Amino acid sequence: MSKGLLIVLSGPSGVGKGTVCSALRGKMDNLVYSVSATTRVPRLGEENGVNYFFKSHDEFNHMMANDQLLEYAEYVGNYYGTPRDFVEETLQSGKDIILEIEVQGALKVKEKFPEGIFIFLLPPSLDELKDRICGRGTESQATIDHRLSVAVDEISLVGHYDYAVVNDQIDAACKRIESIVIAEHCKVRG
Amino acid sequence: MSKGLLIVLSGPSGVGKGTVCSALRGKMDNLVYSVSATTRVPRLGEENGVNYFFKSHDEFNHMMANDQLLEYAEYVGNYYGTPRDFVEETLQSGKDIILEIEVQGALKVKEKFPEGIFIFLLPPSLDELKDRICGRGTESQATIDHRLSVAVDEISLVGHYDYAVVNDQIDAACKRIESIVIAEHCKVRG
Repeated sequence: MSKGLLIVLSGPSGVGKGTVCSALRGKMDNLVYSVSATTRVPRLGEENGVNYFFKSHDEFNHMMANDQLLEYAEYVGNYYGTPRDFVEETLQSGKDIILEIEVQGALKVKEKFPEGIFIFLLPPSLDELKDRICGRGTESQATIDHRLSVAVDEISLVGHYDYAVVNDQIDAACKRIESIVIAEHCKVRG
Repeated sequence: MSKGLLIVLSGPSGVGKGTVCSALRGKMDNLVYSVSATTRVPRLGEENGVNYFFKSHDEFNHMMANDQLLEYAEYVGNYYGTPRDFVEETLQSGKDIILEIEVQGALKVKEKFPEGIFIFLLPPSLDELKDRICGRGTESQATIDHRLSVAVDEISLVGHYDYAVVNDQIDAACKRIESIVIAEHCKVRG
């Protein structure tokens, strides 16, 4: 049995990574979704090993110190990261695994896993991205301007990725990602 | 408008290149089929520029001498080749073009067009290929053995190709080829 592929789906905030990733569920037989580790307390109904691997701060620090995370980041006082073991065990079992992740995190994963398939999700246009960011409704103009400027910086990193997929329509974007995975399985590797 | 992609579909004799190529027709909007040049006399109903570009031996020699063919070969006293102009004009118009071609011819195209996408069609197994070659019904045992040994030599050249697609079922093979073309259009080029 051949090893699975690590698929990393990234892109600027607001581009629709989460929506596309959810839409992919059920469409692809051989695809497993990566489960993150977090120091955040479980919310009602969340299960350990399904929604997250819930860890204490000590456990998380231990994972960081022992290179057991492909990437990690702090967000509002809690840590989130991608456990290397879960990814490697899934790949060894012959299944593909997909990580939905921020741009900086994806580039860290690339350092540790250059053989991964790195897909950058692009907005159809910057105007469209602005609409999507504004569409969330709650942000001030200064916050919107800041997020848009971060998004422009992130988009400039597309050259570090293997593929760029325009998220014009969710179904079309899903089909492109499915196609990339099928094609990568047909690739002749030197 | 961006340039189209040159797709080269090759593989050993008997693997089903022609069948797969025909099945692809109509499935892919943006795909044009390459038209070969030949010195063969047109058969009833064949149209110049549709089935073939019909050429005199002098005209064909002139095309060979002026590097106007991406590859050519002799078969039963007539020459067949791929006109460079038709390929380049199609690509410039933003459409993809597919060449269905023998293994040696494909490698010649690769020398002149390394940016092409080279797809090798594989039989599900050598036994299956043998059945398909025998299935044509008319060949002697010696001819079958020879053709199978040529096929094995050709299959050993798969490493020169970008993708290997198993032709287990025509629809499945078509879907893989479509996926490769979609994925290649998403590729970030350095």
